[in-house]
Amino acid sequence: MEVQFLGTGAGQPSKQRNVSSAALKLLDELNEIWLFDCGEATQHQILRTNIRLRKVTKIFISHNHGDHIFGLPGLLSTRSFQGDVGPITIYGPAGLEQFVKTALRISRTRISYPIKFVELVDGGEILNDRGYRVIAKPLDHRIPSFGYRVIEAPKSGELLMDKLAAYHVPNGPLLGKLKNGEKIELADGTILDGRDFLGPDKPGRIVTFIYDTRKTPNIAELAKDADLLVHESTFGKGENRMARSYYHSTCIEAAQVARDNGVKQLCLDHISARYLGVDAKKLERDAQEIFPNTILANDFAKIQIPMKG
Amino acid sequence: MEVQFLGTGAGQPSKQRNVSSAALKLLDELNEIWLFDCGEATQHQILRTNIRLRKVTKIFISHNHGDHIFGLPGLLSTRSFQGDVGPITIYGPAGLEQFVKTALRISRTRISYPIKFVELVDGGEILNDRGYRVIAKPLDHRIPSFGYRVIEAPKSGELLMDKLAAYHVPNGPLLGKLKNGEKIELADGTILDGRDFLGPDKPGRIVTFIYDTRKTPNIAELAKDADLLVHESTFGKGENRMARSYYHSTCIEAAQVARDNGVKQLCLDHISARYLGVDAKKLERDAQEIFPNTILANDFAKIQIPMKG
Ligand SMILES: [Zn+2]
Ligand SMILES: [Zn+2]
Repeated sequence: MEVQFLGTGAGQPSKQRNVSSAALKLLDELNEIWLFDCGEATQHQILRTNIRLRKVTKIFISHNHGDHIFGLPGLLSTRSFQGDVGPITIYGPAGLEQFVKTALRISRTRISYPIKFVELVDGGEILNDRGYRVIAKPLDHRIPSFGYRVIEAPKSGELLMDKLAAYHVPNGPLLGKLKNGEKIELADGTILDGRDFLGPDKPGRIVTFIYDTRKTPNIAELAKDADLLVHESTFGKGENRMARSYYHSTCIEAAQVARDNGVKQLCLDHISARYLGVDAKKLERDAQEIFPNTILANDFAKIQIPMKG
Repeated sequence: MEVQFLGTGAGQPSKQRNVSSAALKLLDELNEIWLFDCGEATQHQILRTNIRLRKVTKIFISHNHGDHIFGLPGLLSTRSFQGDVGPITIYGPAGLEQFVKTALRISRTRISYPIKFVELVDGGEILNDRGYRVIAKPLDHRIPSFGYRVIEAPKSGELLMDKLAAYHVPNGPLLGKLKNGEKIELADGTILDGRDFLGPDKPGRIVTFIYDTRKTPNIAELAKDADLLVHESTFGKGENRMARSYYHSTCIEAAQVARDNGVKQLCLDHISARYLGVDAKKLERDAQEIFPNTILANDFAKIQIPMKG
C-alpha cells in the first residue's frame, strides 16, 4: 500500500505543483490503483510514473472545482487506448456524470470500457469489497465536498509454525487450510483447527484524504486513527480567518486534527503557489510543532504505508 | 509575428509531445496572441513560455476531438485569475460552447471576462479586424474540422527620406502624416502628398494551420502562397491508405500541398507517438525530398515570420 502524489498544488497549476490528484496503490493487495481527485494533466503526471492507467479502477472526487476534475475526460479517453481495460467507477458529488458525459459526447470519444458513476449525497459507506471499505463524509467547502477514509480489513495472523511442528503437517493444501482458520484431518486421524495455530489478527491500515474544506467535525471522524492522513493546507499559521472565509484549512488546523485523533502520519497537501520553497517548508515546520510526524506533499513523492503488528 | 508550438503530438500526450496547440504571437502587431487548438495541459505548457494568458484574445479550434479541446476549461479558468483581462473569442465547430459552458457550470467557475463563441458551419471569412483577416474552410476528418488561414493586410511602404530631403520637413507630426499617405502644407506654403514619397507596399504575411484532415481540395485554397503552412502529418511516407482510412494526412501529402501552392515554409505538426527520435526525423526528411523548406514541429519551438519585401 503506497500513496503517490500526482498534483499537490491549489487552484491553478504552477511549475512546481500540478493541480490535485493522488494515487493510492493497492497493487499487492488488489492489483488496483485508486485515484483521489483528477485535476487537469493528471494523465500527463502519470506518464512520468510507473502507474498504468489500466490499473486505475476507481476515482474518488472530493468536489467539482476545476482543479480537481478537469483531468477526467482526457484520462478516461487515454485509458481507452490501452488494451484490455476493465470498468472504472467514479465517486463524487452530483454533476460529475454530466460533466464527463458532455465532454465525451462533444468530443465524440468512444470509451472501450464501462464507466459507472456513484453520486454522493450524504456519504456513508460507499464501498465494501474484497477487504476494503471506503467511508465518505461531507465537508465544508461552499460547494459539496467529501472526505474519504479507506479502511483495510484486519488480516488474520501468521501460522505459528513452532506450535505446529509436533504434528508434521505436510507442505501443501493442508497448511493452506490451517492458514485460513479451517479444520483439517491428518493421515493418522488427528483433527487440527487452524484457529488454534494462528497468531493474533493484524489490524488493517487506514488512509484518509481530506481535500478542500474548512475546519469541520466530520474531518475528525474520517481521520480517527489513520495511518496516513492527507489533509489540505491551503493557508499557513495565523491565517485561520482567511482560511475560514475561503472555505479552506491552515496547516495548524490539519496538525490539530492529526494530534487529537490518533493519526500516525500527516501529509500536508493542496499547497498554494503563494508558498514556494522555504515558505512551503515553513508550513511543514509550523505543523510539526503541533504534530511532529508531518511532511509536506510534493508532486511524485511516495509514502509507503507498511502493514501493522 | 511568430508561431510557437505548445503541443505537437497526436491523440494522446506523450513525454515528448503534448496534444495539439500552437500560439500565433501578434505582439508587435496587435499586442495579442491567438491560439490554434487547446488540448489538455495547454495552460501547463504556457507556464513554460513567456506567453501571458491575458494576451490570448482568440482561440481557433480545428475540431472537437479531445486532444484539441480538453484544455479549454482549465485555460479559461486560469486566465480569469490574471488581473484586468479582456474578452476572448472562441471559434470552432458546433458543440464547443456546450462543452465549455457545461465544464464551467459544473465546476462553479466564475469567469471574470466575456467569452464569445463563434460557431463555424461553412467557414468563409470569420474575422476581419485591424489589418488581419482569418478564413476558415471545412476539411475532411469524419467529424467537422476546419483549417485556418490568417492574412495580414499589406503594409504601406517606407517614407523615401532621400526624395524628401530637399523639402526640409521638420521632424514630428508632419512626417507622420506623410507616412500615412496624407497631404501636408509646409511653412512656405508648399503642399506635399505623402503618396509621392512612399516606397512600394509591403505585402502582408500569410499563416495557415491545417490540423486533422485527410487530403482534400480546401487545403490548397487555405495554403496558397502561405509564408508558413503548419500541416498535420499523422502518418509517414507510403501510409496513404492508412491516412485515408483514419482521416489523416501523410508527411508526403503535406509536402505536396506546400510544393504545389507557392508555400514558403512547411512545418509538420500532429506527430504520432509511433514516430520517435530518428523516425520523426524521417518524416521530415521524406517531406524535404518533395518540399525542401520543411521542418518538424517540436513542443516550444518558435518560428519567426519576417515581414516581406
Ligand atoms: Zn482545490
Ligand atoms: Zn488530433
